[in-house]
Amino acid sequence: MRYGFLGPETTFTHQALLQALTEIPEEFRATEPELVPFASVATATTDLIAGDIDALMAPIENSVEGGVSGTLDVLAATDSITIVAEQTVQITFVLAAREQTALEQLTTVSSHPHAQAQVQGWLRSNVPGANIAAASSTAAAARDLASMSEDEAWGRAAVCSPLAAEHFGLTVLAEGIEDHAGAITRFVLVTREGRIPARTGSDKTTVVIQLPHNRSGALLEALEILGSNGVNMSRIESRPVGDFLGRYSFSLDLEGHIEDRRVSAALRSLHRLCPVVHYLGSYPRVDGEQPEVREDFADGAYDEAHDWLERLTGMITPADPTTEI
Amino acid sequence: MRYGFLGPETTFTHQALLQALTEIPEEFRATEPELVPFASVATATTDLIAGDIDALMAPIENSVEGGVSGTLDVLAATDSITIVAEQTVQITFVLAAREQTALEQLTTVSSHPHAQAQVQGWLRSNVPGANIAAASSTAAAARDLASMSEDEAWGRAAVCSPLAAEHFGLTVLAEGIEDHAGAITRFVLVTREGRIPARTGSDKTTVVIQLPHNRSGALLEALEILGSNGVNMSRIESRPVGDFLGRYSFSLDLEGHIEDRRVSAALRSLHRLCPVVHYLGSYPRVDGEQPEVREDFADGAYDEAHDWLERLTGMITPADPTTEI
Amino acid sequence: MRYGFLGPETTFTHQALLQALTEIPEEFRATEPELVPFASVATATTDLIAGDIDALMAPIENSVEGGVSGTLDVLAATDSITIVAEQTVQITFVLAAREQTALEQLTTVSSHPHAQAQVQGWLRSNVPGANIAAASSTAAAARDLASMSEDEAWGRAAVCSPLAAEHFGLTVLAEGIEDHAGAITRFVLVTREGRIPARTGSDKTTVVIQLPHNRSGALLEALEILGSNGVNMSRIESRPVGDFLGRYSFSLDLEGHIEDRRVSAALRSLHRLCPVVHYLGSYPRVDGEQPEVREDFADGAYDEAHDWLERLTGMITPADPTTEI
Amino acid sequence: MRYGFLGPETTFTHQALLQALTEIPEEFRATEPELVPFASVATATTDLIAGDIDALMAPIENSVEGGVSGTLDVLAATDSITIVAEQTVQITFVLAAREQTALEQLTTVSSHPHAQAQVQGWLRSNVPGANIAAASSTAAAARDLASMSEDEAWGRAAVCSPLAAEHFGLTVLAEGIEDHAGAITRFVLVTREGRIPARTGSDKTTVVIQLPHNRSGALLEALEILGSNGVNMSRIESRPVGDFLGRYSFSLDLEGHIEDRRVSAALRSLHRLCPVVHYLGSYPRVDGEQPEVREDFADGAYDEAHDWLERLTGMITPADPTTEI
Repeated sequence: MRYGFLGPETTFTHQALLQALTEIPEEFRATEPELVPFASVATATTDLIAGDIDALMAPIENSVEGGVSGTLDVLAATDSITIVAEQTVQITFVLAAREQTALEQLTTVSSHPHAQAQVQGWLRSNVPGANIAAASSTAAAARDLASMSEDEAWGRAAVCSPLAAEHFGLTVLAEGIEDHAGAITRFVLVTREGRIPARTGSDKTTVVIQLPHNRSGALLEALEILGSNGVNMSRIESRPVGDFLGRYSFSLDLEGHIEDRRVSAALRSLHRLCPVVHYLGSYPRVDGEQPEVREDFADGAYDEAHDWLERLTGMITPADPTTEI
Repeated sequence: MRYGFLGPETTFTHQALLQALTEIPEEFRATEPELVPFASVATATTDLIAGDIDALMAPIENSVEGGVSGTLDVLAATDSITIVAEQTVQITFVLAAREQTALEQLTTVSSHPHAQAQVQGWLRSNVPGANIAAASSTAAAARDLASMSEDEAWGRAAVCSPLAAEHFGLTVLAEGIEDHAGAITRFVLVTREGRIPARTGSDKTTVVIQLPHNRSGALLEALEILGSNGVNMSRIESRPVGDFLGRYSFSLDLEGHIEDRRVSAALRSLHRLCPVVHYLGSYPRVDGEQPEVREDFADGAYDEAHDWLERLTGMITPADPTTEI
Repeated sequence: MRYGFLGPETTFTHQALLQALTEIPEEFRATEPELVPFASVATATTDLIAGDIDALMAPIENSVEGGVSGTLDVLAATDSITIVAEQTVQITFVLAAREQTALEQLTTVSSHPHAQAQVQGWLRSNVPGANIAAASSTAAAARDLASMSEDEAWGRAAVCSPLAAEHFGLTVLAEGIEDHAGAITRFVLVTREGRIPARTGSDKTTVVIQLPHNRSGALLEALEILGSNGVNMSRIESRPVGDFLGRYSFSLDLEGHIEDRRVSAALRSLHRLCPVVHYLGSYPRVDGEQPEVREDFADGAYDEAHDWLERLTGMITPADPTTEI
Repeated sequence: MRYGFLGPETTFTHQALLQALTEIPEEFRATEPELVPFASVATATTDLIAGDIDALMAPIENSVEGGVSGTLDVLAATDSITIVAEQTVQITFVLAAREQTALEQLTTVSSHPHAQAQVQGWLRSNVPGANIAAASSTAAAARDLASMSEDEAWGRAAVCSPLAAEHFGLTVLAEGIEDHAGAITRFVLVTREGRIPARTGSDKTTVVIQLPHNRSGALLEALEILGSNGVNMSRIESRPVGDFLGRYSFSLDLEGHIEDRRVSAALRSLHRLCPVVHYLGSYPRVDGEQPEVREDFADGAYDEAHDWLERLTGMITPADPTTEI
């Protein structure tokens, strides 16, 4: 098994993948998993569809920064991949340098813009004079700093994960520098389409829908479909369709599994309403929580209604003009 | 074939039944139909269920007076009968006496309370001094008047149908005396359960629902179910459930046939929501109108959604701990 | 004070009025109230509007028989009257004759059709052979029986209230003969428009609305207005508008008083939606129950929202092209 | 007047600000406007609130990339600023180098991640071998390239705006390289709170709402509030509240002005529902389009409903036990 992840090594995505792999009992691992870093979710997805890797871990949302557009847009663009699992990682950042340095001596701090956005308050207060330099990932910021000459590295620091600082042998100047303690990033493990994990009772279903744009109120209709089937949303993310302003697709996480009648009924209705519905998978929730389901949204209620209607439609007679009314 | 109707002879229900029978081509009538008057819809229904008659014509609503409670409550109380056709009759009343009489000479005017309610304005203006006497039907009022001694009949008149006045040999003192010209009564033809007429494309479906009483807003939920399946109502009638104030059942006419996917989907959802759903039948509309159906409520949209979901659920794999994620 | 009621004497409406009057402390009654029976709600209402009586007690719904059309239609037809109180009366019927008679000797049972509908099961089982004769009220049935010659009265019985049987000196052959024990009729006391009783915290508001007929789903919109203001309905009654089939007005009882912000907000929105809204009054609930009101539907929430918006709109500047953006 | 913008010079934001300024007739400009570039919307907003600048142009959404989180989060975090105008700019990118270079000779292409996301397809096809380097803005990418030594600049190119390429004297290797032609970015001009531009009839209102998190379906309720007041949304953007996964605020653009009754009614209801509503301003639409408003959502309908209710509540009498009912 080859697992791709948004790299380079030591990213939070890497960490999420390592976490996920520990959850597979060792005796069931046919072979030692191979981990493959990718520069972008887009390129990794191309390789996944092509069969070069078997699965891919990608960040999908952060509790502070919101949806990860890169992942959302790639997931929305194809019907060939399926989410089979999720992971969450507690996000914390360190400020790391090549050697112990006073904060006021720092002239440049590099990081990935997303990470930077999460520590900008701390940076403004603690290293107000430093330039902020963009790196392609927090891991790259750490790695680049580690590979500089000592002179070049002087006055420079990187905002990165504790794992990255350790991995690249950097000195931690400050830890827990994120503005909002307790930020969490959620990751999804995607595979090629073809297999949906069985229902566990604590599941999530991810879909991307495009609404009909020729009438207002379509988002309301979509939410009513969910509400009238007792399906809660745990995530909603609007993304532009791309053709012009004001047209959105919505990426939704629904509580429940496609095997749950309430979820499948809602999906069917969404399919009628929406010109595009991408089903991205049903998979176990990482928090193990089980939704409370109102009696009329339980499987039994759907099944009984189905049977009742079957019995009724069995009574329909073919049109026959010779039959007296 | 024995056809019951709310009698006695010459009622508007009788007229509706005669109308319905003319619509069956003569060559298809196996036998001459036998028409049987009944004193109440309740007793006729008992006979229908027992097999003593084969069909029953009953009034269900009047455009001025509203729903006919007697019929609605009987229909709501049993699952053993099915509506197979509807008829409408233009309602008009005459004031009839044994012989030509000046209006100011009238001392008593008899009629059925429903008819009386429809002519009360005219009576107040034209025969303000007369007593209003209740009869069990407009036909009974006419028949009783016809069977009185001449002395007894003096000063008396009946509010009845033109057919009744003619049938019982009465003299029409005034015609078209209804307060609202153009009133229409709608009748339904019911048979024992077992056969639903085939879809014609211009159909109506009648159901009676009881809402869950432990939460408010259930009527709203029921209407949302109809709305989200593009199903219009052409009639809604609230009736008390009977156990205490504030609990209602609703008798609904829906546009469409149970074979229409949008109708069957709505019925299934109502079945989940409601502790009681009585399906009373799908039958051709007497006006022949066809509803406009939005694209996402057409049969094709339901079928495609169904197929799409079948394909997806075919991909669900049984739980197997030996499978690597 | 002259109080009208749907007569004749000893009707349940009479009883409801007597009940209501006992609730006024004697020391506050300027004069001994005068009670005036009327043959119909329509004529009593005409007299009320004309000033001949000061108030009118009328039945509005029965827990078994449903809405009282005569009252509902009269209330819906005028803006000149206001409901100021409600009463409920437990309905129970007796079968009464001139003297003790075996049930099998009865040939004719007379009653008002509404009462008859409530005892028809009992009559069918216990006096299957008797003719059912219509009277203009249960009280009239009793009174007529009392005024007959002994010969004429032989074999006759009346279905009436215990009060009527007692009042007219009849012998009770059977009591509690109603098919549904525990039936309740609700009555309203109406006055000429001009005064709405103050809010008590346990109130009801009655309105009649006509929906726009040029678009489907308007009833859903009306119920959404109520739902989105946290206003529950305790009664809904559909009545035909009268011009043609399929057009309804709805008579609604809402929990709350017009002084409650959630009720007044809902009424304002209904007024926009509906071509006709008749406000029929806000008055204390006879059961004294107080609705639970969600925080965002409390008066305070409406008032704060109002103040917030006032503050914002105070910031709107008049258009002035000389102002730089 | 000092106008801030998201810099450095030659950004699309700069261009949007120049566009906006040309729309003010010269004779009304008290003084020559001063344009001040800022490194981030956050720092510019701090300066705006502090009074160091008078207005600020910031990007808010892009038709391909979606909402601009930096701007949305800053706008959502304060009540002290107001949007007073919007601008849109057609987005197009060029690939520019110091001198004419064959694409296959390029080793490094630098740009801002947002811009890069919009050209990544083109880059993958046309310069597949080049490294992608992150810059803090497209303008910075161009400026940095222009300021390098010739040797250093060899094999390097920048993805930037035509304006930036021209401004920094670069050679355009390819133009129109965006993957989706016709991308548009929308910008807003914000000032300190205190003044809302007058209604023009073609207006937009921007709000940020946080939903109550203790009940599901609150987003549905919020959209129903808009729907039941006939208010369309032209933009919806979900943003995490930041405390934990699954809690969102929503940034909404509504069609209409706070002076429109339907908009103010909707805002009042949102204020009741939502623990937080930030009103960010009402301002003229740049496209000049006027919404079609259904009759019952017109100002007149709200005003008539208001007057009707005022008249009714004027009839409420103070509680007085001495008044006979």
